[in-house]
Amino acid sequence: MTDTGREIHLASRPEGWPSAENFRLVEAPVPTPGPGQVLVRNTLMSVDPYMRGRMNDAKSYVPPFRLDAPLEGGALGEVVASEADGFAPGDTVLHGLGWREYALLDAGAGRKVDPTIAPVNTYLSVLGLTGQTAYAGLLEVAAMRPGDTVFVSAAAGAVGSLVGQIAKLKGAARVIGSAGSPAKVKRLGELGFDAAFDYHDGPVRESLRAAAPDGIDVYFDNVGGDHLEAAISAFNVHGRAAICGMIAQYNSAEPPAAPRNLAQVVGKRLTLRGFLVNDHNDLRDRFVADMSGWLRDGAIRYDETVVDGIERAPEAFLGLLRGENLGKMLVRL
Amino acid sequence: MTDTGREIHLASRPEGWPSAENFRLVEAPVPTPGPGQVLVRNTLMSVDPYMRGRMNDAKSYVPPFRLDAPLEGGALGEVVASEADGFAPGDTVLHGLGWREYALLDAGAGRKVDPTIAPVNTYLSVLGLTGQTAYAGLLEVAAMRPGDTVFVSAAAGAVGSLVGQIAKLKGAARVIGSAGSPAKVKRLGELGFDAAFDYHDGPVRESLRAAAPDGIDVYFDNVGGDHLEAAISAFNVHGRAAICGMIAQYNSAEPPAAPRNLAQVVGKRLTLRGFLVNDHNDLRDRFVADMSGWLRDGAIRYDETVVDGIERAPEAFLGLLRGENLGKMLVRL
Repeated sequence: MTDTGREIHLASRPEGWPSAENFRLVEAPVPTPGPGQVLVRNTLMSVDPYMRGRMNDAKSYVPPFRLDAPLEGGALGEVVASEADGFAPGDTVLHGLGWREYALLDAGAGRKVDPTIAPVNTYLSVLGLTGQTAYAGLLEVAAMRPGDTVFVSAAAGAVGSLVGQIAKLKGAARVIGSAGSPAKVKRLGELGFDAAFDYHDGPVRESLRAAAPDGIDVYFDNVGGDHLEAAISAFNVHGRAAICGMIAQYNSAEPPAAPRNLAQVVGKRLTLRGFLVNDHNDLRDRFVADMSGWLRDGAIRYDETVVDGIERAPEAFLGLLRGENLGKMLVRL
Repeated sequence: MTDTGREIHLASRPEGWPSAENFRLVEAPVPTPGPGQVLVRNTLMSVDPYMRGRMNDAKSYVPPFRLDAPLEGGALGEVVASEADGFAPGDTVLHGLGWREYALLDAGAGRKVDPTIAPVNTYLSVLGLTGQTAYAGLLEVAAMRPGDTVFVSAAAGAVGSLVGQIAKLKGAARVIGSAGSPAKVKRLGELGFDAAFDYHDGPVRESLRAAAPDGIDVYFDNVGGDHLEAAISAFNVHGRAAICGMIAQYNSAEPPAAPRNLAQVVGKRLTLRGFLVNDHNDLRDRFVADMSGWLRDGAIRYDETVVDGIERAPEAFLGLLRGENLGKMLVRL
């Protein structure tokens, strides 16, 4: 064990698209755990679109990242020193202090995971909050029912690819995904999507209409903007949107023009519902049971894009915003 | 009884704001009821904002009004001839064939009302679909709970004025209304609103923030556009909008720019839900029981703006769109 560890600080708040200059790699002393604390050496961390929002100095549901302090986010690591009951060196711990090589945790802030049950990576992706987001958004927030036609944007991403597969497993009649490259569109076919399109190929509204001539019942929104507008236009009556994110807008300095057809929510009796996964922990046991079974049976497949080295975490995050990932974007430390 | 009756036809489809030229007063033969039919002489009819939508030739939840045929809408009348069991001359009937002096109804399309229980006008307003819209939207669609802060737009209108009063009766902590004139704002104070503002007095967002410094939990939307944007901005987490109408957009040829802050639905976990009262007939009995009691106790007050003469029905409708009504806009035939 060394005396210092590296961590990524927020050097400045991005305006519009972030860039490497907004991040700073810092060498910091490795802390010593006090009573009730554990020191974890991180091995894997998650980068997620929602982190863009925390880089703004805006009042929101979670406080903004602080300047000149390490960023935060889902991470896995190994306990190297423990002053807390129930944690011993060698334990694998899931926690929220990523973006650093060494994390000092209060015991209540970490959760031990069993690396013999599933590959540890999956606790940051398909078996973790990523999977739970897909599950909760689709089944609880959008209340998908068997027979529904489901549309997912950013469908080749970590959440979207699971939404589509869970929809099929839960009886959706038809699942349509949009993605940002021919390779991703091809991958959606392999994952069992009934139709997929590259949103660069034309107006989303037209592509969706062609893929769902009889309309859609559920929309899982990761993108916002023209995708949400297209979904509103394609919705059948009583359509339901679970709004997980609006990545199209995160880096825009201009207010978005779309959706221009919001008035259709009345006549079609649509429900548009934003959600955060943390509000849906009541279904965690059900999610873990379902997802573990699907993984065991090979019924769910998941992709990971792994970048090596904490110094490349900003690059991984920027690539995620540009859609360079297939499935879950992770950084191996 | 005469041989002919007058009716208002749709002469042309308006583009943008409708005008008198879109309507035509026509003299038509009075029909004779066949088996199972009743002939009703209308005495009162309703004009409602939703009718603007039916003037467009657009696929929607209800078919568009036909050109060169009478418009339709809620009406009350007196049976003058009946070939249907259960209906006799002199009965007062509530039905959907307004905009004409004589309506020929299949018996199933009309409902007898008892003029001794309540003034018949109320079956078209506070005890009718208008009241039920306010009740269903507030309590079921927006799921208002005691202690909520509630914002209503077009609050001096037929639906809005009831929403605010029902909210107070059901335990809202604070009810805020927006309206379009100082007289209406004053009236909202008399109806028990805790705060009200004239939306001409400044940006709605600022007026609402001043009236609801601690945010809002429920928004009953009759207006859309800048009002919906202001509500999204003022919403507390888990805020809920019941979207009844978007009158600000009905006459606009341009797609609306607002709401530009829709991305807030995620972080605040907002629910925006469009509705039509007809989907909520399951709570009709509860509504009638509650509302009858409130009327009996003098706990609910309602305004009516009555225009005389079927020839002035277009004028009444146009006035409604311009906000010239206080409370329910009716035409006495």
